[in-house]
Amino acid sequence: MNTFIFTATFILLSTVVNQGISNPAIGFSAILSQNTYLENDHAIVYDNVVTNFRNGYNRWSGHFAAPRKGLYVFTCSVRANSKVGITVVIVHNGRPVLRIASSVYSPETGSGSVTLILKKGDNVWVKRLGHGRHIEKHYNYFSGYLISAEI
Amino acid sequence: MNTFIFTATFILLSTVVNQGISNPAIGFSAILSQNTYLENDHAIVYDNVVTNFRNGYNRWSGHFAAPRKGLYVFTCSVRANSKVGITVVIVHNGRPVLRIASSVYSPETGSGSVTLILKKGDNVWVKRLGHGRHIEKHYNYFSGYLISAEI
Amino acid sequence: MNTFIFTATFILLSTVVNQGISNPAIGFSAILSQNTYLENDHAIVYDNVVTNFRNGYNRWSGHFAAPRKGLYVFTCSVRANSKVGITVVIVHNGRPVLRIASSVYSPETGSGSVTLILKKGDNVWVKRLGHGRHIEKHYNYFSGYLISAEI
Repeated sequence: MNTFIFTATFILLSTVVNQGISNPAIGFSAILSQNTYLENDHAIVYDNVVTNFRNGYNRWSGHFAAPRKGLYVFTCSVRANSKVGITVVIVHNGRPVLRIASSVYSPETGSGSVTLILKKGDNVWVKRLGHGRHIEKHYNYFSGYLISAEI
Repeated sequence: MNTFIFTATFILLSTVVNQGISNPAIGFSAILSQNTYLENDHAIVYDNVVTNFRNGYNRWSGHFAAPRKGLYVFTCSVRANSKVGITVVIVHNGRPVLRIASSVYSPETGSGSVTLILKKGDNVWVKRLGHGRHIEKHYNYFSGYLISAEI
Repeated sequence: MNTFIFTATFILLSTVVNQGISNPAIGFSAILSQNTYLENDHAIVYDNVVTNFRNGYNRWSGHFAAPRKGLYVFTCSVRANSKVGITVVIVHNGRPVLRIASSVYSPETGSGSVTLILKKGDNVWVKRLGHGRHIEKHYNYFSGYLISAEI
């Protein structure tokens, strides 16, 4: 009996070492589906959810809540729908961490990425920081994913 | 005999737990090396391949085919080489998933990222969606990588 | 005795297989905190370090040195603080690999990402390639992270 289980263990372990065990899969991407007017201090609600593996992203609030601790990456693109620039900011538990700006003179896309260490349950979202208020559907999006849980 | 293999197993397992086993490595980046005129419905062929680990990216077709299932991230930057904006779109198995636009008024870079769940063999590429047709060498690129195979 | 260790091994292995072992965690993000004049051939020193897990990024030199070999992703955004475009380039061990340009006509953000295979100790940084020299605080940043050590 012991020999059987032992052999099973050895085969299982060899498989692990040969093929690798992957990172836990956590990641989302969401896109704005309607032209939107930004209020102060509200999360931007990217409502067209392309991917939401492990359901960390809430499409009603616009918040991502970390399903587990780890090293994460977040990316956001912003584009105004007029010739007024808009600055948004990626927020971690209420603290602004990365500003991203659309141009002041023409509707163009600004993008930014940031690497963050999150505790389980930490929140990350995007809000308006300043300048204009009208952002364009399809060209505003927000993504995040776990890089490693080994922190 | 059993004791020897058993001890080997235990040491191997301890190593795995202490050092971690990494994600399978899959990732590519490719850059446009020539100013290019975009046809309708053709994949943009980023021909200067910087990295192509596990050969998922095909530099002749511009398509990435997933070497295995998993959670992937794709990033693309677009820049026109005139004052005509260009919109491109990241396509997953023929379905457009993320639009990225260069400015309408000046040659500027638009960038976007998207997290996608792929089955083995799924295709991801970039094509023109609208507006102008001339994109600039060196400033148009496409990247993708596996975040986790645990889906 | 053997039975005890054996059982411990089996439980440990089952845990590994069920929960996954994550990628080693390596990643950083740093932001420019002051408007900066770019010299030729100097690394841009992003001095406001948001994250620096495993200390690969040096905030005095602007260089990232890989703590271990692997497949990495680097992302950079550039924005001039005047109506003069600026081109920067991500450099790997002295070799320019990815150009990123701010617009020629208006202060706007250009962003780019690249996937690179690094040996332990390889350096990655960002430098000015051409055009203007004044970049704007808060909107210039540089990030990098390990995707997989299995190369």
